[in-house]
Amino acid sequence: MTGKSNFLDCASDLLGKQGFTCDPELVQPWLTDWRGRYTGAALGMASPASTREVADLVKLCSVHEVAIVPQGGNSGMSGGATPDASGNAIVLSLRRMDTIRAIDAEDMTVTCDAGVILQNLHELAAEHRLRFPLTLGGKGSATIGGLISTNAGGTQVLRHGTMRAQVIGLEAVMPDGQIFNSLTPLKKDNRGFDLKQMLIGSEGTLGVVTAATLRLLPEISGRTVFWAGLQSITNARKFLLHCQKAAGDHLEGFEVMPAHSLQAVLDHLPDARAPLAARSNWNALVELVSNDAKTADLPEIAENILASALEQELIEDATIAASETQAEAFWLLRDSISPAERAIGPAMQHDISVPVDKMARFVETAVPQVEARFPDSRAIAFGHLGDGNVHFHVLAPPRAVAGEWEIEEGKQISMFVHDLVTEWGGSISAEHGIGQMKVDELGRLADPVALSLMRSVKQALDPKGLFNPGKLIPRG
Amino acid sequence: MTGKSNFLDCASDLLGKQGFTCDPELVQPWLTDWRGRYTGAALGMASPASTREVADLVKLCSVHEVAIVPQGGNSGMSGGATPDASGNAIVLSLRRMDTIRAIDAEDMTVTCDAGVILQNLHELAAEHRLRFPLTLGGKGSATIGGLISTNAGGTQVLRHGTMRAQVIGLEAVMPDGQIFNSLTPLKKDNRGFDLKQMLIGSEGTLGVVTAATLRLLPEISGRTVFWAGLQSITNARKFLLHCQKAAGDHLEGFEVMPAHSLQAVLDHLPDARAPLAARSNWNALVELVSNDAKTADLPEIAENILASALEQELIEDATIAASETQAEAFWLLRDSISPAERAIGPAMQHDISVPVDKMARFVETAVPQVEARFPDSRAIAFGHLGDGNVHFHVLAPPRAVAGEWEIEEGKQISMFVHDLVTEWGGSISAEHGIGQMKVDELGRLADPVALSLMRSVKQALDPKGLFNPGKLIPRG
Repeated sequence: MTGKSNFLDCASDLLGKQGFTCDPELVQPWLTDWRGRYTGAALGMASPASTREVADLVKLCSVHEVAIVPQGGNSGMSGGATPDASGNAIVLSLRRMDTIRAIDAEDMTVTCDAGVILQNLHELAAEHRLRFPLTLGGKGSATIGGLISTNAGGTQVLRHGTMRAQVIGLEAVMPDGQIFNSLTPLKKDNRGFDLKQMLIGSEGTLGVVTAATLRLLPEISGRTVFWAGLQSITNARKFLLHCQKAAGDHLEGFEVMPAHSLQAVLDHLPDARAPLAARSNWNALVELVSNDAKTADLPEIAENILASALEQELIEDATIAASETQAEAFWLLRDSISPAERAIGPAMQHDISVPVDKMARFVETAVPQVEARFPDSRAIAFGHLGDGNVHFHVLAPPRAVAGEWEIEEGKQISMFVHDLVTEWGGSISAEHGIGQMKVDELGRLADPVALSLMRSVKQALDPKGLFNPGKLIPRG
Repeated sequence: MTGKSNFLDCASDLLGKQGFTCDPELVQPWLTDWRGRYTGAALGMASPASTREVADLVKLCSVHEVAIVPQGGNSGMSGGATPDASGNAIVLSLRRMDTIRAIDAEDMTVTCDAGVILQNLHELAAEHRLRFPLTLGGKGSATIGGLISTNAGGTQVLRHGTMRAQVIGLEAVMPDGQIFNSLTPLKKDNRGFDLKQMLIGSEGTLGVVTAATLRLLPEISGRTVFWAGLQSITNARKFLLHCQKAAGDHLEGFEVMPAHSLQAVLDHLPDARAPLAARSNWNALVELVSNDAKTADLPEIAENILASALEQELIEDATIAASETQAEAFWLLRDSISPAERAIGPAMQHDISVPVDKMARFVETAVPQVEARFPDSRAIAFGHLGDGNVHFHVLAPPRAVAGEWEIEEGKQISMFVHDLVTEWGGSISAEHGIGQMKVDELGRLADPVALSLMRSVKQALDPKGLFNPGKLIPRG
C-alpha cells in the first residue's frame, strides 16, 4: 500500500462516503474555476460536515503531507480555489457546512458556518427585518468562508466597508489542525494580536475559515436610485463629492461607467433601455437609502442633488428611477457590464485601486497610454469610483485570436497596467484577491518588505506549506 | 570598552545630542507609568527625529541585542510603555516625531507621525471643519502611535469603532530594521495579508509604529446630550436598544454609571451638581450628534425618546442639557468617575467586556458574587454599556492598607473577576491592552491556540525578542 492510497483510505474512513470522494465525475466540476481560466487536478475532494471533521482532516493531511485547497462557492475571480496541475492536493469543500448557528436580531449579529451562501444569509436577515450589508454578482454561489478568505468587496463598500468590516468573530482550522475560535461577539477585545484579521483575506494560505460571527444592520425602509450623464470622469469625481456632502450616510452606492460599457450592455441585453435620451461620455449610478431610524425624504434629497449638480454643470442630464422596477433595471445595466464586455471578445480585466482622489486623473491618463502602447486595443474603466477602485478592462483588437492573444499581448498589457497602477501608488488587486492569477505580478511589484513579512508569517504558521500552495504568496 | 558602552556611543553618534541621552535626570521621568504603578530602568532614551533614524537605531539595537521599549505619551493603562527593572533596554520615545505629514480635507484623510498628540490632531481637523472620531481622557498626552499600538477605545466606539477602524494606512519599523510602509490611502487593497492589522494593538511587540494615515469625518453641526435615571442596569440595556432604534446613526455615545459612582463624583468635584433631583440606582448619559449632511431636529428626537421611555417605564426621570455648558457638565461627571473613585481609596480596576447582550446580566450577577466572596469590598461597574465594555472597579474595604491590599487581596479579587469574565465568554482587556499588568493573567486564561499563534508570529517577526519584551505575550 502506497502512502497516497493509505491517505485516501484514512480520509474516507474519517469523513465517510458523503464526506470524501475520489470519483472523477464528482470531483471534476470543482477542478476548474467558474470563468474557465484555470483547471487543476486533485487526489480527491473532502466535504466535511463539521469543524471537528475539518480539523481531523487537516491533521491527517499534515501527517501525510498532502496539500489542501479550500473551496467555497468556487466563484472566485483569481483562481484561488482551483488546485494546481500536480494532482497532489485535495480540494476541501466547505459547502456541506451551511448551518446558521445563531442569529441575534436584537444585537444584530449572526453566527454561521463557512459554507452558508451569501444569498441565503440575505434572505435570513430579511426575515428578521435586518440586512447583511455586502452583496456582489456571485451572491447565489459565494459562501461566507470564501467572502472572508478573499475579503470580498462589492457595490456597498463605499458605505459599509469590505467583508473585513462585517466580521466580528471567526473560527478557523489552522495548518497544525488546531481550531482557532474567536466567535464570541465582543465589540471590544484587546487581548493581543487580532489574529482573525490575519486570516481575513489570506485566501486559505494560513487557515481554513469554518465559521464567522457577522454584523447585521437594520433593514432598508426606502431607497432612491438615480442615473446621471457626465461629460468626464473628473466631473464624476466632483459629482461624487457633491453627493457625499448632500446625502451623507444615505449614500449607499456610486458606480460609474463609460459610454462604451453602457452601449455594450444595451447591445447585450435585448430588453435593456438607456436611462437617458442623449449619450454622455460617462454615466453615474447612485443609490440613496434610509432605514427606520434614519428616515428622510430621499426623492427630495435626490432632486436637490441633481438640480444643483445641473446648475453647477457637474452633470449633463439625469433621471430618478420612478419605481422599484426601474431602480432594478438601472442596477441590471451596471451588473451586466462584465458579461456584456465578455461577449464582445477577449479582454484583460484588471481589478485595481489608486487613492480615491487620484482615480479620475488615473483613468484619464492611463486609458490613452494603454491605447497608444497597444494599437487597436480599447481600454475602459468602470465601477466603484467612490472606493478608488475601478475594473480596468482592455479589450483585444479585432484581429486578436482568442486564447492566443491573452497569453501573448494580453500578458504584456496586464504588466503595463500593473506598472502604471504601482507608479500611482495603487493596488493590483483591489477586491478580487491574488489567487494564482496575480501571484507572479505580486512577486514582481510588491514592496519587498511586505513580501518578506508575508513569507515569515506563512512559514511560522504553515511550515510544511500545505495550505493552498502556489496562491497569494509569491515564491521566494 | 564593553559592548554596552560601545552601543551607547554608536547610538549617540547616530542620533546626536537631541536624539539620545543617558542623563538620569532626563530619562527618569519616563521610567514610571503615569499612574505610578510600574517603574523600570533603562540604558538610555532614544528620541529619533525621523523614521529613517528609528530604522537605523533598531538595526543598531539588533546588532547589540539591546531591547527596545517604544513609548508615546506614556499615558497607557497597563504599563506597556515602561521598561522592566533589568536596565538592559532603551526607551524609544516617538514624541519628537510630531509632524502632520499631509491632510486631505476633500478625501477626509490625514497622514501624521506617530508622535502627534491626539488633542493636536483634533484641533487640526477642526481647522478643516472635520473631526477625528476617537477621544479619551488622556488626549492631551496620548500619541497616535500609542493609540494605534494599544488599539485604543474611548467614548465614541459605539458609533465609530476603536482606533483600528480609523487606520487606513500604517508605517512601522520592524524588528530587523526594515520599514514597512502601507501609508497610501487605498480604500480597497487585497494584496495578501493585511499586515497593518497585525501591528495595530500589538503594543510594540512586533514593530514600532512611526506614522499612520487616518480617516477623518465631517465636523459635528449639532449635538444633544441627555441624562436619564434608571432603576436597573437591565433597564439601561433596554433603554440603549430603544435609543438605537429611535436615533440610529445619530447615537454617538451611551455611558452608564451606578449611583455610587455619581455620588463619588459629586463628593469629589466641589462645583458639580446631580443632573436629576431624585437619586436613581443607575444613570445613563446619552449623546446624539448631527452633521451638515445628516441634519435632524436632535432635541425633538431626544424628547420623543425620553417620552416613550418614560411611558414604557424604561427610565425613572430624565433631563436634556439645555446648553453646551450643561452638556459639558454632564460629560464632566462621566469623565471624573475614575479620579473620584481613586480619591476614596485603593481599588482594583478591571477593563472588561462580555457580549453586549449579556453585560447587564453579568453586572447584576458579578457584583454580588464579588462582594460576597470579598466581604466589605464594593464592586461598581460603569462605562461603555453599548460596547459591552464596563470598567469594573472593586473598592477596598475601609480596613485595607493601601500598597499592601492591592498585592494581596486585590490580586485575588482580580483573578476572581477575570475568571468570571472568562466564564461569560468575555475579555480581560476590552480597551486598555495587556502591557505588563495583565500579561500573567492572559497566560493563565487565554485560549491556548490563540497564545500559540501569537507566539509563532512573534517568533517569526522578532526572533531575538527585542521588541518590548515581557509585554503582551505571556512567557511560554
